[in-house]
Amino acid sequence: MFDLDQYIARYPDFPKPGITFYDISPMLENHHALTSCVNTLVDMTRPYQPDLIVGLDARGFLFVTPVALALNAGAIMIRKKGKLPGDVSTHSYTLEYGEATLAIQHDRDIAGKTIVIIDDLLATGGTIAAANELITKHGGHIAANIVLMELTGLNGRAHLTGDVLAIQQYEF
Amino acid sequence: MFDLDQYIARYPDFPKPGITFYDISPMLENHHALTSCVNTLVDMTRPYQPDLIVGLDARGFLFVTPVALALNAGAIMIRKKGKLPGDVSTHSYTLEYGEATLAIQHDRDIAGKTIVIIDDLLATGGTIAAANELITKHGGHIAANIVLMELTGLNGRAHLTGDVLAIQQYEF
Repeated sequence: MFDLDQYIARYPDFPKPGITFYDISPMLENHHALTSCVNTLVDMTRPYQPDLIVGLDARGFLFVTPVALALNAGAIMIRKKGKLPGDVSTHSYTLEYGEATLAIQHDRDIAGKTIVIIDDLLATGGTIAAANELITKHGGHIAANIVLMELTGLNGRAHLTGDVLAIQQYEF
Repeated sequence: MFDLDQYIARYPDFPKPGITFYDISPMLENHHALTSCVNTLVDMTRPYQPDLIVGLDARGFLFVTPVALALNAGAIMIRKKGKLPGDVSTHSYTLEYGEATLAIQHDRDIAGKTIVIIDDLLATGGTIAAANELITKHGGHIAANIVLMELTGLNGRAHLTGDVLAIQQYEF
């Protein structure tokens, strides 16, 4: 099993006091670690036989394409509101300070498709839950939400549709 | 040669009147087009034998990892200011309305490395030129800037260090 933790840098008090930021940059920078990490994601995703891999803006984009390429799937972006052109559906959710809104394009072919969502981090689950709402609204079937890291103390997985898998778990 | 153009959707007047947005979403969604696009990027990048592939926030992240995986290289993120933890170097540049600032972490090992920058679009060149400044400041050697699409009428390539390659060119 790939030991992601040894390639994660910890930055205390970022982006604000009391929060520890788990940074995947050392893993990305190391070719062998990046290869092992992506192979692990691919192995976790394969059993779901997804038609589409959905990546969340922005770090999720790092993983959606390699997994889609490996598993004969397409890739779709869910982005912050205002970034995607054309008609979009949006879903707003609350953050600790304020609100955020995600969007997906109407032009994407999601209805009836089996979908795996990939992101780097599952914390409170607000972002991935909003992505779940958008995909379900468009008729997609969410098979799984797969992340590199999960902060189990925040219980974000309670808010998600479908399976939830993480390479690495931290409490906070 | 891969015909990227047939998988690009055009949205007039986005994000503002008079601008046409070239959207790569149809290419991403189609597994065969995505595979051909990434293979083309890999073939364009291979001759430079890069140590590192640098991806620009956010759509550049879609391509930096598959190219790094294919070419025995690492991947590095250059992000908008405030997104990367730890000590960073920043470079500001002017946009049509206002200013933007990019950042790179001091903890990345860039000095003496051969680097290829990948992004989806070369327009005025402000964003990629700022990335060039940051990498050069940290002692990296920029071999090439490789994009999916170039708007040749804006002459962005005049502002860049190293070679400039595009899969697809449009005037505006």
